[in-house]
Amino acid sequence: MKDLLNLHELEAVAKAAVSQIAWDYYASGADDERCLRRNVDAWDKVLLHYRVLVDVARRELSTTVLGQRIAMPIAVAPTAFHRLAHPDGELAAVRGAGDAGTLFILSTLSNTAVEEVVAAASGPVWFQLYIYKDRAATEALVRRVEAAGCHALVVTVDAPLLGRRERDVRNRFALPAGLGIENMHAAGYAHIPMATGDSGLAAYFADLLDPSLTWDAIGWLRSITTLPVIVKGLVRADDAVRAIEQGAAGVIVSNHGGRQLDASPATIDVLPRIVDALAGRGEVMIDGGLRRGADVIKALALGARAVFVGRPVLWGLAAGGREGVAGLLAMLRRELDLAMALCGCPDVASVTRDLIAP
Amino acid sequence: MKDLLNLHELEAVAKAAVSQIAWDYYASGADDERCLRRNVDAWDKVLLHYRVLVDVARRELSTTVLGQRIAMPIAVAPTAFHRLAHPDGELAAVRGAGDAGTLFILSTLSNTAVEEVVAAASGPVWFQLYIYKDRAATEALVRRVEAAGCHALVVTVDAPLLGRRERDVRNRFALPAGLGIENMHAAGYAHIPMATGDSGLAAYFADLLDPSLTWDAIGWLRSITTLPVIVKGLVRADDAVRAIEQGAAGVIVSNHGGRQLDASPATIDVLPRIVDALAGRGEVMIDGGLRRGADVIKALALGARAVFVGRPVLWGLAAGGREGVAGLLAMLRRELDLAMALCGCPDVASVTRDLIAP
Amino acid sequence: MKDLLNLHELEAVAKAAVSQIAWDYYASGADDERCLRRNVDAWDKVLLHYRVLVDVARRELSTTVLGQRIAMPIAVAPTAFHRLAHPDGELAAVRGAGDAGTLFILSTLSNTAVEEVVAAASGPVWFQLYIYKDRAATEALVRRVEAAGCHALVVTVDAPLLGRRERDVRNRFALPAGLGIENMHAAGYAHIPMATGDSGLAAYFADLLDPSLTWDAIGWLRSITTLPVIVKGLVRADDAVRAIEQGAAGVIVSNHGGRQLDASPATIDVLPRIVDALAGRGEVMIDGGLRRGADVIKALALGARAVFVGRPVLWGLAAGGREGVAGLLAMLRRELDLAMALCGCPDVASVTRDLIAP
Amino acid sequence: MKDLLNLHELEAVAKAAVSQIAWDYYASGADDERCLRRNVDAWDKVLLHYRVLVDVARRELSTTVLGQRIAMPIAVAPTAFHRLAHPDGELAAVRGAGDAGTLFILSTLSNTAVEEVVAAASGPVWFQLYIYKDRAATEALVRRVEAAGCHALVVTVDAPLLGRRERDVRNRFALPAGLGIENMHAAGYAHIPMATGDSGLAAYFADLLDPSLTWDAIGWLRSITTLPVIVKGLVRADDAVRAIEQGAAGVIVSNHGGRQLDASPATIDVLPRIVDALAGRGEVMIDGGLRRGADVIKALALGARAVFVGRPVLWGLAAGGREGVAGLLAMLRRELDLAMALCGCPDVASVTRDLIAP
Repeated sequence: MKDLLNLHELEAVAKAAVSQIAWDYYASGADDERCLRRNVDAWDKVLLHYRVLVDVARRELSTTVLGQRIAMPIAVAPTAFHRLAHPDGELAAVRGAGDAGTLFILSTLSNTAVEEVVAAASGPVWFQLYIYKDRAATEALVRRVEAAGCHALVVTVDAPLLGRRERDVRNRFALPAGLGIENMHAAGYAHIPMATGDSGLAAYFADLLDPSLTWDAIGWLRSITTLPVIVKGLVRADDAVRAIEQGAAGVIVSNHGGRQLDASPATIDVLPRIVDALAGRGEVMIDGGLRRGADVIKALALGARAVFVGRPVLWGLAAGGREGVAGLLAMLRRELDLAMALCGCPDVASVTRDLIAP
Repeated sequence: MKDLLNLHELEAVAKAAVSQIAWDYYASGADDERCLRRNVDAWDKVLLHYRVLVDVARRELSTTVLGQRIAMPIAVAPTAFHRLAHPDGELAAVRGAGDAGTLFILSTLSNTAVEEVVAAASGPVWFQLYIYKDRAATEALVRRVEAAGCHALVVTVDAPLLGRRERDVRNRFALPAGLGIENMHAAGYAHIPMATGDSGLAAYFADLLDPSLTWDAIGWLRSITTLPVIVKGLVRADDAVRAIEQGAAGVIVSNHGGRQLDASPATIDVLPRIVDALAGRGEVMIDGGLRRGADVIKALALGARAVFVGRPVLWGLAAGGREGVAGLLAMLRRELDLAMALCGCPDVASVTRDLIAP
Repeated sequence: MKDLLNLHELEAVAKAAVSQIAWDYYASGADDERCLRRNVDAWDKVLLHYRVLVDVARRELSTTVLGQRIAMPIAVAPTAFHRLAHPDGELAAVRGAGDAGTLFILSTLSNTAVEEVVAAASGPVWFQLYIYKDRAATEALVRRVEAAGCHALVVTVDAPLLGRRERDVRNRFALPAGLGIENMHAAGYAHIPMATGDSGLAAYFADLLDPSLTWDAIGWLRSITTLPVIVKGLVRADDAVRAIEQGAAGVIVSNHGGRQLDASPATIDVLPRIVDALAGRGEVMIDGGLRRGADVIKALALGARAVFVGRPVLWGLAAGGREGVAGLLAMLRRELDLAMALCGCPDVASVTRDLIAP
Repeated sequence: MKDLLNLHELEAVAKAAVSQIAWDYYASGADDERCLRRNVDAWDKVLLHYRVLVDVARRELSTTVLGQRIAMPIAVAPTAFHRLAHPDGELAAVRGAGDAGTLFILSTLSNTAVEEVVAAASGPVWFQLYIYKDRAATEALVRRVEAAGCHALVVTVDAPLLGRRERDVRNRFALPAGLGIENMHAAGYAHIPMATGDSGLAAYFADLLDPSLTWDAIGWLRSITTLPVIVKGLVRADDAVRAIEQGAAGVIVSNHGGRQLDASPATIDVLPRIVDALAGRGEVMIDGGLRRGADVIKALALGARAVFVGRPVLWGLAAGGREGVAGLLAMLRRELDLAMALCGCPDVASVTRDLIAP
């Protein structure tokens, strides 16, 4: 890790470390993978009009999300199947996040049970929730998550069906023997089978997850848990307002890393509209395509409270397990810290929209 | 077909299946082929601001065009000379369209007589009409089409002369022996000859088709048939309004697949202006460059009632005859269905303009 | 010629037919040759919203410039040293223009004397004038031009010094033995010498042409000739207005084919502003980068009376002498004629701005 | 030098003349080097609407900066470590600048002491100042600079920490034995050491330079010197206004050649906003990415008083020492002179904003 200059180099190391089928699963986007590229490219078009002659001798990167302090406004997005990347899977990832002093969101589709992950964590853990057709199983999962000590539920709303990642279809993606969805054993939903002419995960989604969800689902979740609920996967201001009105504590602006609707706008491009519409109600977070520490400043300047990184964490995991994840997060922190200094921003409160539109 | 992931792969299979001269005829655009690329590229710039937490457990893709129900808002655009692509020609194509439950537009320039095509159809058939200098022959054709059971006349208005497709000029494009324009035998216009230094089809157009048509032609058509008349091949709002004022039931926004005026705007780019100008009078349809199911949603969101696909149908035909056409349409349907789910649109009525401009 | 499909193919034939030094002289632009590409690319961004159902059975392409009828709104721009392209030089070029029924502008820097050129012409000839420091020699030239029967003077105003065409500097461009500036023998300015570390033509300009010209030059020209004066080489609306106010009959929007100021805007991009500012006073013409017949419609729609082509004429000349020039002009005419038909424009009067901004 | 046609060719010669580590140090930008390219590309998008029929027989390129006359509005930006490029280092560079009759800004990080540089100068010398944590050492440096005869202090404000130039990190950039920061011997800060896993220069900055600077630094500088103070390295209008309000005589719009914050806007893109905000208070200068003489006109038209070139001077130095620097400046002067003529601008006062926005 320590010889790697940037995330691009980390990506190359990670690619060499995992199987082609796992790499394709992590790297792919939907259809023509335009959204995948759009997410990344959109950050580069946002420029920072840095300030000069501000005392930046000390930079304070810590912030809070939902009232919990984290060491920097960069946290770990939920991604599935960490043991495809490294034998230590989610345990390594959550430990790496803890080493960086930041938040970890565990995916429903983890290869490690939520209790084990929380036990290994030294920082806050949120739980990304898919709502199954089987509401009883979903409720059981929520209760188990709450009991395990997670601090929030992040309900994914952009996946009534799985987006079509053609690489996975071509590969007939399925989990290798020995890997399952460890949180779903009780309900009998732990297995991702081979599918005929399709991604096994797509078949799993079509079989088990609930495409009939409406906004009532937020109320239902709030009725069965005291955990704050965050709505992840929206790109529209009206949906964000609706989420908060339904009682969500915040939203994550996300298009699922370009893996669902290939025609989706880039997340950073829709962020300002959503922030403006919410006008301070709820917290706004974002993920998708961020590859440099300075990108975090762009998100914050446009009103996000924090950013989440998904694929880069998997690269760190694949390249070096816990140390790789911690190293990736340290790399982004180092870049953010320097960019804050160069922007004349000694802390996150000083990152304001005039950096982008002076 | 079933192993093909998308239209791009289908295109490659089709290219390998037909002669170079036939491929060039199908694939080419006018002059520098900029409009050809512009049509395709323009769709990719239109983004979809999907909605979340809408019940999309059941998607209803059916719609009506001119009051006729079709299984999805994707239908078959008129293209010439299907037996260049497959020995079963238009019969295979119309059967494939029927298998998909959708509408088929038969070209005047078919290698199969309209009566045979309608007899093979299980869904509605419209007839694309070129108006010949020989008005008597044209009238005879219209009556024959009506008698055969076609449901509408689609009059092409963007081809007073044939656009210059340089590949065809280079190839001295002509129909191989045994293939003719089967609807025009009675008038003696069934043969596409070799032309000196030009495309044979261009010479055929210059000789026989009427470049003096004016808006009176719509009135004349309405005087000789009870079939609804659709005007195909316009890109201007004033022309669309004029078409409806002259009694057309609808318009197809089209630039002939980039084969006529190379400087034409992309169809999807002019669609909103035309829809706004018509303000609900007549039905608006579109063709040109669409390659993904999600593109259909873009057209519908901007006010189109349905989209037509031309070259992709020929790819399906070349790759697999009836099954290829049905497979192509099933592929687009599958993509549309998933994109509808991911956009939070359970039916075509829910596809509104705010998806594009929220 | 007859096997060539378009100007691109003609260019390739021409390149093979002349020396590298001559090719570089014709093909090069100033500095980084950005304006050279900008001129060409700008046309492709202008789109034509064609009209349908207009009677285009007969297209009338003829028009007038300064009251003189020409067979089409495409004429020959002045270019230097035609005998570098073909032994018959300007005589072949003017005959080819006459074969096409159009206007020919003879350059001051011709390898053939103006009297011979006019004698060979079957259409109107205008004379492009450089004003020398030696005003007496210039006045003698003007009188000779008038006596020879030229119909207008086109005074070039964008070349107080010669633009730096790096290819010519590298080649130490000079005229081969036997070729001179035939109109300037009397004044002793017929020779383009080898220059040390520079283009010989640049040295000729610096030595002999007058960089101190002001708007008074137009009045001076009008005082010594009854020929109408056209100002060629401007890109600003205020300059165009000034030209007409000083008594010019018209202007040619031009940046010298990208050979003078590399940072100049593309001509088609500035045309509308100039047309609007003139509001019908004087005639506006344009050259620069046009490569397809449809481009002529774009210029006319934006208010130009005619377009001039320079390099393509040299390609025709190099490829086939008189027949090459006539063939090039016939090729553009054929393209224009078809594009007029496809735009629903039976004559030049029907080419209006709504084709571009409907 | 005399056979080189333009700066691109000079760059190639320079690259071949220095070590890879030195080349990387000079050529590199921060992070992904996007700002590096953005600075260069932005100039090419600014177009010049040249004027015609202005007497440009004599062009007067001289101007003043801070009241000092220079032969042209092109001067030498401060760059570090000239002896990496040529054994004669800063002495050759300042002599070359003097040969061109223009201003030289000496970097704090020079390999030659300020007294020697001023002694070798035939034109004005300004001193670029980094403010060290050790204010006493900084004050001593300022006094020494003033005593040596420099005419202004240029305080760099965009580098509270050094930007991350990954090439230098990879190379573990350090000065070779024998080369030091000659102005800082007295303070003991003359040595750039090898750093572990980083650029040695970055470590030097982090150790010694003061990241706590605020606007008070301008007042402090003014309290210890009578030299005019120029603030270099800002891209915001409010910062420029603040600089003048604090007593600066002028500002240099600069992003440190793309070497600090990679997300910075291009300098030419922010120039007009800064000029407008200052409304004539103080002088505005610019550097960053300029590669052609015509670019100088763009800067002047948008309100800059002069432009500075950094890397090109190093190319000249590497390629030919004093003659290389003089040659580079002569090349730019020749290009500017011709572009002024072609723009119809006989002197710098005639370069106004309507050239860009007519």
